[in-house]
Amino acid sequence: MKRLAILAAPLLMAQAPAPPASLTVTTADDAIARAPASHWIAINPDDIMVMDTAAGRMVIQLAPDFAPAHVAAIKALVKAGRFNDGRIVRVQDNYVVQWAARPVDGKEVVSQPPDVREQRVRPTPLPAEYERPAKGLTFTPSPYTDSYAEAGFVSGWQAARDRKTGTAWLAHCYGTVGVGRDMPPDTGDGAELYTVIGHGPRHLDRNIANVGRVLAGIEPHAALPRGSEALGFYKDEAQRTKITQVRLASQIAGFSRWQMMDTASASFAAVVQARANRTGFFIRPAGAADLCTLRVPVREVAQSDVK
Amino acid sequence: MKRLAILAAPLLMAQAPAPPASLTVTTADDAIARAPASHWIAINPDDIMVMDTAAGRMVIQLAPDFAPAHVAAIKALVKAGRFNDGRIVRVQDNYVVQWAARPVDGKEVVSQPPDVREQRVRPTPLPAEYERPAKGLTFTPSPYTDSYAEAGFVSGWQAARDRKTGTAWLAHCYGTVGVGRDMPPDTGDGAELYTVIGHGPRHLDRNIANVGRVLAGIEPHAALPRGSEALGFYKDEAQRTKITQVRLASQIAGFSRWQMMDTASASFAAVVQARANRTGFFIRPAGAADLCTLRVPVREVAQSDVK
Repeated sequence: MKRLAILAAPLLMAQAPAPPASLTVTTADDAIARAPASHWIAINPDDIMVMDTAAGRMVIQLAPDFAPAHVAAIKALVKAGRFNDGRIVRVQDNYVVQWAARPVDGKEVVSQPPDVREQRVRPTPLPAEYERPAKGLTFTPSPYTDSYAEAGFVSGWQAARDRKTGTAWLAHCYGTVGVGRDMPPDTGDGAELYTVIGHGPRHLDRNIANVGRVLAGIEPHAALPRGSEALGFYKDEAQRTKITQVRLASQIAGFSRWQMMDTASASFAAVVQARANRTGFFIRPAGAADLCTLRVPVREVAQSDVK
Repeated sequence: MKRLAILAAPLLMAQAPAPPASLTVTTADDAIARAPASHWIAINPDDIMVMDTAAGRMVIQLAPDFAPAHVAAIKALVKAGRFNDGRIVRVQDNYVVQWAARPVDGKEVVSQPPDVREQRVRPTPLPAEYERPAKGLTFTPSPYTDSYAEAGFVSGWQAARDRKTGTAWLAHCYGTVGVGRDMPPDTGDGAELYTVIGHGPRHLDRNIANVGRVLAGIEPHAALPRGSEALGFYKDEAQRTKITQVRLASQIAGFSRWQMMDTASASFAAVVQARANRTGFFIRPAGAADLCTLRVPVREVAQSDVK
C-alpha cells in the first residue's frame, strides 16, 4: 500500500480537482484507501485536544486559522488543567453536547438557558472570530449547490464563503466543535465548548466561534442521555458526565499522529464524486451532496509510519 | 387563545404563503403559538404508530399518501402484534436507529450488514414506493435553494420534487422513518424500520421507502448506545433494546390527538421565514434554511379540545 502510494504520487500531485482516470473510484472508501501520501495533510499535535470523560475519549482538532484567539484561549485553559474535573452540562437532541471547564472561585462558568441568564461581562472579551478574510485561503468550491452560501473546502475543512464580504468561515456540521457564548456581544471565553450531534445547524455559521471538529470518539458522547431542562441542560449535578482530563496531543508522549485529506487534491475530488453518486445499495444516485454530507476524511496514523 | 384563533381564522384562511402583516412574527415559536386552528391539519389516528420500548415511547406518523403498500404492510404487522417483543437491532451514529419485528418461524428477520447478507427473496415483494407522481399533490416550494432537488412541502411533510420525471417524494431528515431493505431489487417488507438520528441523509431519497416521521419520543432512542459491529449492529442479543408493544393510536382508547401544521398556510410561511432569519442570539441571520432544518410543526392536542 505504501509502495503504491509512492509510485502514484508524482502522477497525482499536479492534478486539478477533477479526478484523473487512474483515480476513478466507485466508493468513497476506495478513494480514501487509494489516496497517495501526498494527498494527506499532517495535523499539528499541538492543535489536537484529547478529552477523556466518563463516557470515553474524544479527540478534537482545533482550527487556529479560523479562530486564533479562541483556540489560544482554549489551549491555555487545557494547559492550566481547567477542563480536568469539568462536566458535560447539556445534551440537546438533534443539536449539541456541551461541556464546561471547572468553575473558578466557586463561580459557575456554565451558561444558563437564555430565559434565566444575565448578560455576561467577561474581563477580557475575545474578538468575534465568526468569519475571516477569504484572502490567503485555498478555497475549493463544492460542485454542488448550498442552501446557505457558497460551499466548499479550505485545507481539510468544510467551509463556506461570501464573495460580497470577502469572508470565509467553517461550516457547522455533525461533529463541529464551537465555543458556547451568551447573548451578543458576548463571544465566549473558551471555557464552554459544544459539539454538534444532529442535523448540521448551519444557521450558527458566522454567529459563533467555530473552533474545530471531532476526529474520533463522538459516538458515546452523542449517545448520552438528553437533559430534561430547557436547551437540554441537566437538572442535577449527578446527571452531568465527568471530564477526567483534557490534554493536547503534543503533551502526550507517543500519542497517535493524525492526518486529514487535502481538500484541494484529486483524491478528495474523487471522494466528493463518490459520495454524490453512491452505487450498490443505491438505485438512483443523488448526483449531489450537501456540504455537511461531504465530510473530510481523517485518519489516525501509527507513530512508526510517520517520518 | 382558542377565541383568538376563531376570530383570526376568516382573515387568514384565504392567504397565499406570504404571511399577512397581522401574522408578522419574530420567532418560529411565536408563529406556531399564533397559528389559527384552520392552519392545523388533524392526523388520522389510524396513521399513528405508538411504539413502547424499554427506552420509552416513540410516536410515529405514517405517510400512506407516499408509500401506501408499505404503510399497509406495516399496519398489518402492527395489528398482528408482530412488533411486540421485537428488538432495536442497530444504532449507527449520525445515521439511524433500526428495529425489527419478531422473527417468524425462528427465522431471523433482521437485515445483516451487506458483506454477510444474501439476496433476500420475499414471497410477496412490495412495490418500490420511493417516489410518486407529483400530480395531485399540493406542493409548496421552499423559498431556499436545495443541494439535491426542488425542495418544498406537501400537506405537512418535508418533500422534494423533480419536474422532469414529474415525481415527488418525502425527504430524509432527522426523525424520518423508513423501511429497511436489502440490496435491490429488494424493497423491504415493513418488518424492519429505521429512524434517522443524524444529519439528513438525503442520498436515501428515492432509494428506499420513506414511510413517516417521529412525532415524539425520539430522544431516548437517539441516545441508545451505538452498536459495535458494521453499520452499528449490536453484537449480542442482550444489547438490543426490547420493544414491548406497538399499536396504532386508533387502537388505544383516549390516545391524544395529533395535528400537523398545514404547510400551505400563512402560519407555516411565517415559521419558515422565522427559521431562516433568527434573531436574539443571532447577530447575522442566515437568510435561508435547508429543507431538513425547516421542520413542520406538530402538536399533541388533548382529546377534550378536539371536536
